Amino acid sequence: MQKPSIPKGTRDFLPQETAKRNYIFNTISDVFKLFGFEQIETPAMENLSTLLGKYGDEGDKLLFKILNSGDYLSEVSDENLHSRNLQRLTGKISEKGLRYDLTVPFARFVAQHRNEISFPFKRYQIQPVWRADRPQKGRYREFFQCDADVVGSDSLLNEVELVQIIDEVYRRFGINVCIKINNRKILNGIAEVIGESDKIIDITVAIDKLDKIGLEKVNEELAFKGISREAVELLQPIILLEGANKEKIATLRHILSKSEIGQKGIDELEFILNKTELLPVRSTVELDLTLARGLNYYTGAIFEVKASDVEMGSISGGGRYDNLTGGFGLPDVSGVGISFGADRIFDVLNQLNLYPKELLSSTMVMVANFGEKEIEYCLPFVSKLRQSGISTELYPEAAKMKKQMAYADSKKIPFVIIAGENEMADHKVTLKNMTTGEQLSIHPEEIVEKIQR
Amino acid sequence: MQKPSIPKGTRDFLPQETAKRNYIFNTISDVFKLFGFEQIETPAMENLSTLLGKYGDEGDKLLFKILNSGDYLSEVSDENLHSRNLQRLTGKISEKGLRYDLTVPFARFVAQHRNEISFPFKRYQIQPVWRADRPQKGRYREFFQCDADVVGSDSLLNEVELVQIIDEVYRRFGINVCIKINNRKILNGIAEVIGESDKIIDITVAIDKLDKIGLEKVNEELAFKGISREAVELLQPIILLEGANKEKIATLRHILSKSEIGQKGIDELEFILNKTELLPVRSTVELDLTLARGLNYYTGAIFEVKASDVEMGSISGGGRYDNLTGGFGLPDVSGVGISFGADRIFDVLNQLNLYPKELLSSTMVMVANFGEKEIEYCLPFVSKLRQSGISTELYPEAAKMKKQMAYADSKKIPFVIIAGENEMADHKVTLKNMTTGEQLSIHPEEIVEKIQR
Repeated sequence: MQKPSIPKGTRDFLPQETAKRNYIFNTISDVFKLFGFEQIETPAMENLSTLLGKYGDEGDKLLFKILNSGDYLSEVSDENLHSRNLQRLTGKISEKGLRYDLTVPFARFVAQHRNEISFPFKRYQIQPVWRADRPQKGRYREFFQCDADVVGSDSLLNEVELVQIIDEVYRRFGINVCIKINNRKILNGIAEVIGESDKIIDITVAIDKLDKIGLEKVNEELAFKGISREAVELLQPIILLEGANKEKIATLRHILSKSEIGQKGIDELEFILNKTELLPVRSTVELDLTLARGLNYYTGAIFEVKASDVEMGSISGGGRYDNLTGGFGLPDVSGVGISFGADRIFDVLNQLNLYPKELLSSTMVMVANFGEKEIEYCLPFVSKLRQSGISTELYPEAAKMKKQMAYADSKKIPFVIIAGENEMADHKVTLKNMTTGEQLSIHPEEIVEKIQR
Repeated sequence: MQKPSIPKGTRDFLPQETAKRNYIFNTISDVFKLFGFEQIETPAMENLSTLLGKYGDEGDKLLFKILNSGDYLSEVSDENLHSRNLQRLTGKISEKGLRYDLTVPFARFVAQHRNEISFPFKRYQIQPVWRADRPQKGRYREFFQCDADVVGSDSLLNEVELVQIIDEVYRRFGINVCIKINNRKILNGIAEVIGESDKIIDITVAIDKLDKIGLEKVNEELAFKGISREAVELLQPIILLEGANKEKIATLRHILSKSEIGQKGIDELEFILNKTELLPVRSTVELDLTLARGLNYYTGAIFEVKASDVEMGSISGGGRYDNLTGGFGLPDVSGVGISFGADRIFDVLNQLNLYPKELLSSTMVMVANFGEKEIEYCLPFVSKLRQSGISTELYPEAAKMKKQMAYADSKKIPFVIIAGENEMADHKVTLKNMTTGEQLSIHPEEIVEKIQR
């Protein structure tokens, strides 16, 4: 007999967990819709030609690949087979892979359906993705991403709206957050003025680690990457820049006075911050020059969100990227987007105990079962309860009362209706409030009203 | 340049289609919850040991298998490799597969989490499944199933509730349906009295085709399967039984008088039909002896639902099965369930034009963009609109009015707010109703009220 199990890094979601996750997805989804984003879905499987080469060599390795159906060896020559050349063999026996993120399938979607959608196209997407990463605490091989993007519009108003979306989502969750913002053009400007334009990736990757490894190690890494001592020296005041956003911007304007792209980045940043100030945004919005984000495709604003009251990595992130769909034959389409990390939000809401109480119970009323005659007495008002939108269960067997009550307890059902011989004789029912223990003898017609109150 | 495409048999869902599908899932989900069912989710990937052997040889072939990560050939001997024995090789290079239905993962789930759930366990599950079937019209390689099951209760009240659930779901959709009901025990009884007990599967499979191929071909198939002429003769009145449910039952009682299991089946059927009559069920509920359903694991009641006003195969189906979880080390757990076919319901709602009109547009208000100053004038009331729950878009660029209006049209946005220089000077906005063409000049504070009306 096999012991039932699931692949490592994957999860089952029990009713309570599913209810909590639905609450997260619905909250995010409601806010996306409030800002005019429309939902799309793409298939779990994409052609490997769509996915390969989009996530770097490491990403290619982490793609889950689907074995071709039927005689998958028919196209494989003996020579290919015997050589055990994995890469070549994989190309022959597998042509599909599981979605690795939502961005590449979205780019493919936009290019493929360009004539069916209107630009600017504001879409959101909430679907699972799969990565053959080594599983560890908080890292899964199947997890959900919740992304909203606008493509086909260069306007910085989109960035402003994304800040509002972040603010509104976390306001609804009751999570206080700090929205960190930066701009890739500023980082490019910095690389330019210190004379290391070609090393911008190395510099941003190193700066990104400041919080984790400290200044000294960042400087070591910069030196190790071949950045000159002078340049590292010039970088110091920039990495350690402090104060209010306005002060930082003033200093940056000065330092980057000779970099056109740097000034452009500051302009963009200032626009977003100024417009945000006109709006009822409650979250802290902070310019953070150490924010670089690993992904190399960002070209303008970049965002990251941290929960203020718990220790946790970033719970949302995003930014502006140019030429998203170029690889699919649709060049010069700019986009900007934000992604919410459902798994981390799940943990933050648990830690801060912020889930709404209604999520704890799904059924409002259980009708105890005393046998066939009693059940027939109950059927009409059970229908009425449901017609009134009150979720109601009939305990299916005439089991011992203790067992039935234990079931109601385990499902945290707040009301139990007892209708045995006595109640039937009096044309009444007993309504038990499972929280207070209070019992009321009432007419069946009164149940709906009592419960709705 | 690659032309963007997706694997055959899979689909992208554009915003409109996604909205329609969400409407279907939410409607079904709401009704499941009203009856006390709780949602669970299981991973897309299951161990192949969980899936293989559960769907017959044909099913095993149709499973999508995932190539092991890393050096998947490391455990394959040269001999195994060179022999090109697909079955053996597949077992070495793949240990996971994509979910083929929701029932087997659910059985695995119940066995695995038996100590974390309370029985009777009423769960529902709405997730995609994958089958490497040959794609054709209406048949996809990725599609959603919407299942509700009760496990751990033998009570026929569960069957009665499933009939109510079917009725309520289709009442909400506005689709008139006929709920066909039968019982595997009756079919077993029939096989018994005609002396062909061991051929029950062949008989039910043949009977199931009556609608499609007619009586003559059914009889031919029965004969071909080795059922004696006498037995085929005895089957005729049973296959062609007509009249009201009560008449059919009376006739069956007589014909099956010598079969204990047959009588048991009739008792069960009668209980369900009698209780259903006490309830406000609007759909036709019809005993259909030709209903056998292909799946061999049903042991009691079986259901199938047909839309009355369109030509379409069954749009829901289900039944009672014993020993669902036996294969996973948890014997003697009976279950009963129902599955809604989302793809067919999607088509029926389209054909009958039954989707609610609200689904056609997602955004309620678009604010036209005349430039930065005008946008700053708009930002405060745009925030107010959203705070009032009115989905609002700011057109991100100060594009030509014609282009902005075309965008509003394409997204079927019912209201556009125009606030140019003139409006600003008067402290007003122009609210345009895109359906009637009517334009109102109003104060920004009045917008919410006007639109809510």
